Amino acid sequence: MSEQNIFTDDRKGQAEAWFRDFRDQLCSALERCEDDTSGPNGMSDLAAGRFERTTWNRGGAADQARSGDDVMRGGTDGGGGVMSVMREGRVFEKAGVNVSTVSGEFSAEMRERIPGAKDDPRFWASGVSVVIHPRSPHVPAAHMNTRMIVTTSGWFGGGGDLTPVFENDAETAQFHAAYKSACDAHSDVADYDKFKAWCDDYFYLPHRQEPRGVGGIFYDNLNTGDWEADFAFTQDVGRAFGDVYPALVRQKFDQPWTDEERQAQRIKRGRYVEFNLLYDRGTLFGLKTGGNTDAILMSMPPDVAWP
Amino acid sequence: MSEQNIFTDDRKGQAEAWFRDFRDQLCSALERCEDDTSGPNGMSDLAAGRFERTTWNRGGAADQARSGDDVMRGGTDGGGGVMSVMREGRVFEKAGVNVSTVSGEFSAEMRERIPGAKDDPRFWASGVSVVIHPRSPHVPAAHMNTRMIVTTSGWFGGGGDLTPVFENDAETAQFHAAYKSACDAHSDVADYDKFKAWCDDYFYLPHRQEPRGVGGIFYDNLNTGDWEADFAFTQDVGRAFGDVYPALVRQKFDQPWTDEERQAQRIKRGRYVEFNLLYDRGTLFGLKTGGNTDAILMSMPPDVAWP
Repeated sequence: MSEQNIFTDDRKGQAEAWFRDFRDQLCSALERCEDDTSGPNGMSDLAAGRFERTTWNRGGAADQARSGDDVMRGGTDGGGGVMSVMREGRVFEKAGVNVSTVSGEFSAEMRERIPGAKDDPRFWASGVSVVIHPRSPHVPAAHMNTRMIVTTSGWFGGGGDLTPVFENDAETAQFHAAYKSACDAHSDVADYDKFKAWCDDYFYLPHRQEPRGVGGIFYDNLNTGDWEADFAFTQDVGRAFGDVYPALVRQKFDQPWTDEERQAQRIKRGRYVEFNLLYDRGTLFGLKTGGNTDAILMSMPPDVAWP
Repeated sequence: MSEQNIFTDDRKGQAEAWFRDFRDQLCSALERCEDDTSGPNGMSDLAAGRFERTTWNRGGAADQARSGDDVMRGGTDGGGGVMSVMREGRVFEKAGVNVSTVSGEFSAEMRERIPGAKDDPRFWASGVSVVIHPRSPHVPAAHMNTRMIVTTSGWFGGGGDLTPVFENDAETAQFHAAYKSACDAHSDVADYDKFKAWCDDYFYLPHRQEPRGVGGIFYDNLNTGDWEADFAFTQDVGRAFGDVYPALVRQKFDQPWTDEERQAQRIKRGRYVEFNLLYDRGTLFGLKTGGNTDAILMSMPPDVAWP
């Protein structure tokens, strides 16, 4: 066995508690957006959207929820999570926030691919993942996640990215600046330029020769040896999203839209579907190894067009 | 080289001419449906739908159109086709009929996988492919194709399948009976039970544990040594579809639908998207080898929901 793993049980508890706390903060911030909009295009007739929570158990009715965000599917065993979904809100047509903590053993095939799993297939993983599809074509869609994974080794991963229908330079700059600040505040462990490029590289549709959105950051296998520093950075990645995304939403959420703009959004969402089903590693892995389909495909947009 | 190939230039010409003729017959039959409906749910306010034709050249602006229906993408070279698309009809929300004849050389990787291509990578291929997404949730979606491929060997392939939103035993039986008649009339070369099972096996979504639709027939690599008989069967596979599908459409095309039925259709179409992007061999191969994306994804439904 390896030397003492710095990803201790106490630290697992700290991470898990933080992911839950972040979920609560983010859901509240998004629900406040629902309360505060004037409701363009008649949306104020709708009730302000609220998240509904569903608890699920691994091996039970549902499996790990967000696509692309974890490597735990395909293993065996325990744990579970809470999936929070808002549907048909004034601002958010569909938004999902999933927190999960699972443990078990990786399959033989996975052991070869996962750091630290070759000689001991046991793993523990906890994380939060978020996919948001706003109703307004002026409000950008978004995705984020952070996670901690423990084998005989351990690491953090995560990131966030923005998918506007109509790109707006100021909005894009504001989003990137939030992540740059988070990275720069943790420059001992985080490399903004590298993480930004990693995101651009991952969220790309070769068959369209199009990026999925305007990017953000993406990182994985982060273990500098300083657990506290890596965890602090991961928390700030979450906080950056939790601060900047609702702010971006509020800049646009009262702005009315036309049918043509809505149709452009529905077409753009088709690209999101294409990415998730053709390329997203977590989605494909989950669907092809018996993960819970409804949970994995919670990320799919509610209303899509290929005209 | 092999002995004299029975897939002669004269026979290529016969097949190509027939695929075009079938396209004309089918498009006319579908346009007559557009003319003849009373237009439930206000659809008679729309102009009767018409197919618009776009000519494309291989290596030019577009590549082979229908997903899943040919193995020509990824090779090099010449030829092209005509894509006929009807959009926003009274009956057909989106329908595509593509005829193509292409030739060239298979890539090194493909040579190993394609019968008769190992020592001589040249190929010729011609075919017709059809994807129909009706507006009414009562009218089933449908897909069909037939093709002839020539290497140092040669063969026919094709089939058709039906995807209703609400399964109706009589309708399903009528569809299957049409293909059974076509196969039984050519029992020297066609095995209905085998071709039906092949279709069921192919159009299945493991992650949903659901068939895509109610099936039909699917066959490939058909070369019994009697070209005339194989071609006659392939023609009857096309004719069977061309007769039965418009008849099924007419049984339901004046029947009004509810918003709930429409939503069920939009969700069912999501399954169609999932199948095409996750499993359909032609779609994946085409998109990942630089085929023309717009043409390949012409099969995608126009209006889809993942609520």
